[in-house]
Amino acid sequence: MAINDSTPVNHRTFIYPGSFDPVTLGHMDLIIRASGMCERLIVAVGQNHEKKTMFTLDERLDMLRDVTRSLPDNNGAGPAAIEVTSFDGLLVECAKKLGAGVIIKGLRAVSDYEYEYQMASLNKYLANDLETVFIMTDIRYSHISSSAVRDIAFHGGRLDGLAPECIINKIKIKVNKK
Amino acid sequence: MAINDSTPVNHRTFIYPGSFDPVTLGHMDLIIRASGMCERLIVAVGQNHEKKTMFTLDERLDMLRDVTRSLPDNNGAGPAAIEVTSFDGLLVECAKKLGAGVIIKGLRAVSDYEYEYQMASLNKYLANDLETVFIMTDIRYSHISSSAVRDIAFHGGRLDGLAPECIINKIKIKVNKK
Amino acid sequence: MAINDSTPVNHRTFIYPGSFDPVTLGHMDLIIRASGMCERLIVAVGQNHEKKTMFTLDERLDMLRDVTRSLPDNNGAGPAAIEVTSFDGLLVECAKKLGAGVIIKGLRAVSDYEYEYQMASLNKYLANDLETVFIMTDIRYSHISSSAVRDIAFHGGRLDGLAPECIINKIKIKVNKK
Amino acid sequence: MAINDSTPVNHRTFIYPGSFDPVTLGHMDLIIRASGMCERLIVAVGQNHEKKTMFTLDERLDMLRDVTRSLPDNNGAGPAAIEVTSFDGLLVECAKKLGAGVIIKGLRAVSDYEYEYQMASLNKYLANDLETVFIMTDIRYSHISSSAVRDIAFHGGRLDGLAPECIINKIKIKVNKK
Amino acid sequence: MAINDSTPVNHRTFIYPGSFDPVTLGHMDLIIRASGMCERLIVAVGQNHEKKTMFTLDERLDMLRDVTRSLPDNNGAGPAAIEVTSFDGLLVECAKKLGAGVIIKGLRAVSDYEYEYQMASLNKYLANDLETVFIMTDIRYSHISSSAVRDIAFHGGRLDGLAPECIINKIKIKVNKK
Amino acid sequence: MAINDSTPVNHRTFIYPGSFDPVTLGHMDLIIRASGMCERLIVAVGQNHEKKTMFTLDERLDMLRDVTRSLPDNNGAGPAAIEVTSFDGLLVECAKKLGAGVIIKGLRAVSDYEYEYQMASLNKYLANDLETVFIMTDIRYSHISSSAVRDIAFHGGRLDGLAPECIINKIKIKVNKK
Repeated sequence: MAINDSTPVNHRTFIYPGSFDPVTLGHMDLIIRASGMCERLIVAVGQNHEKKTMFTLDERLDMLRDVTRSLPDNNGAGPAAIEVTSFDGLLVECAKKLGAGVIIKGLRAVSDYEYEYQMASLNKYLANDLETVFIMTDIRYSHISSSAVRDIAFHGGRLDGLAPECIINKIKIKVNKK
Repeated sequence: MAINDSTPVNHRTFIYPGSFDPVTLGHMDLIIRASGMCERLIVAVGQNHEKKTMFTLDERLDMLRDVTRSLPDNNGAGPAAIEVTSFDGLLVECAKKLGAGVIIKGLRAVSDYEYEYQMASLNKYLANDLETVFIMTDIRYSHISSSAVRDIAFHGGRLDGLAPECIINKIKIKVNKK
Repeated sequence: MAINDSTPVNHRTFIYPGSFDPVTLGHMDLIIRASGMCERLIVAVGQNHEKKTMFTLDERLDMLRDVTRSLPDNNGAGPAAIEVTSFDGLLVECAKKLGAGVIIKGLRAVSDYEYEYQMASLNKYLANDLETVFIMTDIRYSHISSSAVRDIAFHGGRLDGLAPECIINKIKIKVNKK
Repeated sequence: MAINDSTPVNHRTFIYPGSFDPVTLGHMDLIIRASGMCERLIVAVGQNHEKKTMFTLDERLDMLRDVTRSLPDNNGAGPAAIEVTSFDGLLVECAKKLGAGVIIKGLRAVSDYEYEYQMASLNKYLANDLETVFIMTDIRYSHISSSAVRDIAFHGGRLDGLAPECIINKIKIKVNKK
Repeated sequence: MAINDSTPVNHRTFIYPGSFDPVTLGHMDLIIRASGMCERLIVAVGQNHEKKTMFTLDERLDMLRDVTRSLPDNNGAGPAAIEVTSFDGLLVECAKKLGAGVIIKGLRAVSDYEYEYQMASLNKYLANDLETVFIMTDIRYSHISSSAVRDIAFHGGRLDGLAPECIINKIKIKVNKK
Repeated sequence: MAINDSTPVNHRTFIYPGSFDPVTLGHMDLIIRASGMCERLIVAVGQNHEKKTMFTLDERLDMLRDVTRSLPDNNGAGPAAIEVTSFDGLLVECAKKLGAGVIIKGLRAVSDYEYEYQMASLNKYLANDLETVFIMTDIRYSHISSSAVRDIAFHGGRLDGLAPECIINKIKIKVNKK
């Protein structure tokens, strides 16, 4: 299946892709800030059949719906409508199908940027009218990644300040079950 | 004078700062793409009293007004209203005064990113409700900078593909006058 | 087996190593440009027994022989004689055995460079008379990698502009068989 | 188990973590240089149950004890007392338990730095009184890593100048057994 | 004058070089953390006759003596004795003359690291028994540099959170005099 | 004057540009290694009328002619014919006029690479048939730059191991004259 280049996309609809395994405070910060910049924000959970995840796809979708339900007003601008969805395949196809014109990514460090730069170039090739836009991660969250959260949880380290309260409980239950 | 933190900013108003000495095709590409993402786009020419410029501030403002007057429609989304202004001092003050909530920057390479990351952190400290957002420069324009254009012009190299047609003529006149 | 340091190498014989799984337009661009700089160019396909590949070693050797058979003349300098071979083990041993004095690598982004810098240092330690030389990837191909091509092919995205025509057909057949 | 923040740490006790699979001349150089800067140096071998190693944990502990037993005096300052231990879990917990206040890391190239920067930020979050300090790898050893040593050994390349004499013998025995 | 390689240096004496024009909270953080790791800490203000400074050398020495006089105890380890001095020429000569065996530097971002890596290599060439050790800047201070402080001060932006209280007053007096 | 795109260039003629103020052992290493890879090597000294130099253009041309006169045979391949020239303006024009098809640059660290990548892109735009090729600086010389040599000379530090013997004498005479 080729990507349908005739679908019109809206550059005030942003799509924020990730695996969110689990959702961290870094993700939350980016969702809140991005939601103030656009009219519609789609949080898109990518499926990767070859990678084992801590949480199932459905659990991750539920978590994201929980934590985005009642987000605070972002600096008076009024937050965008937030939708949570999943995609299986190329991100650009998902974006085109949902009419999103801007892919939004958080950047923590230079190493992030290099990888993201190549991905953005490739996505531009696949769908020329899609833009990729980067927001710098708040320095208070720059040390947080989903894999670090999983690693710390596995070794019994403290998680407050890394993930939203309700997510921390879910992580602890997962780890103890094993 | 302290920065007035009580002024409300709008996160759908973007501000694009630069020295634009001269305007390049890289600048034009970013203006066109950014104008599709926001409701209002302010192109802000920074004054730097310690640096000699090829064009005066007024010439640069005129050039930018010329080239942004009749921009093509950006992917059907409808371009934002574009304003051209200048600022003398801190960018964050200019942004706050004009109600812009998002600083937009183009990124060419990693070296850009490192500098921009530090600037974005500093601007976040100066005005917490201002966001900095990065757009990747189109690879077709990634070798272009104003200083490269000035350098090539000075040595009589070809300028087509580096700056808008009407700007190239202005550059040639400047260089020949010297 | 130690590397035979007594073998004389020729610094006008270049060796271009890779997994070429599959050959991309980025590889083709580098082969064409490198072939203009040297007298003999060896394209060397590395075997990696621990990594699953899309194409077998023999298929990759055949593909490379196909696409290098009738390369265009490179800027009038006359292209080098191109040979295609495979190696199993250390690249430096292969280079020494074939008398190649220069390893040629394409660089896409900074992240490439860092890894390549370490490899070049290590190869210098292993065989002091071998040089590593880097050619910058053409920006038109800088988003292309074999893994990106495989990924896009797997998800049914378009491949034109990523790999030579004859290779695209072979990729499609591979993907549909699965 | 939470990390006990009440344990006092000593900032003149350094801890040098790694997998040391096997010990290289780069590791040795760092141990010698670090031992001159602190009063007590702990070399800590991390266990990673998911990764296959060339040497067992006990073999690596024995190797490190062997090579650190009679280290030369470091520039007249007198070397620190060196201890060798292992840890299973988070490094910061191990450091706190042993009273080490400074994590010492070697840096080879920029790519090292980026990863180490994120780890240092995360460890600072986990235990605020722990410092991470970086020593630049001597350029004579900057191309050496344990994985490069394993790779070269596997392909029969020469190992002198990469690992201490006594370790080279142990590596050869391992490789020949397979 | 050649560097006297016969002078013994002490690797538990650290030297922290900089221009400190002016002292920032980032400098203070590094001084406090380094003072816990060594027995003696020398803060060395470099003279650069070709660069205009905001504060004279004597003013900078006075500022540093003021702010280091009554530093808090660093995590119970007991702070090192802190000395403030100036140097005119090569840092390594100053270090050797004062018997310091370790140069300590703060790192903010990758761009810092690259420059510092080259300087450390060069200093190692000039005096082989001198070590350079890097401490990661606390993320709360990573956006702060002396030049940013001067720039913000010049444009009347707020300085709290960037420099120690007593320094802020001195900066304001300097700026208003002009 | 526009760049004459009709001039045929030879991709086995390399051009090595620089300011060579003064020639260092790093430059010498690169000249020796590059001369083994090509048939003709042009060392091109760039004039920069806005920058003060330690040595005049004529002095630098003389120095380069001196040190390249009797270079050792490079690994049996036979060194290329070496020419020394100067250029005033754009490097690509000089290369085209002399028929050189490959610009050769030494790379020390990542920061070099980023700058060189942008220059190579720009030169590719200015003259599409010109290639830029990078050789990694030997790690024994990676800390050396002309500016470091000037700086150390100015402060009376030792220069052996940084520049060729005959150049060191010339530097000392320059410094003492001031």
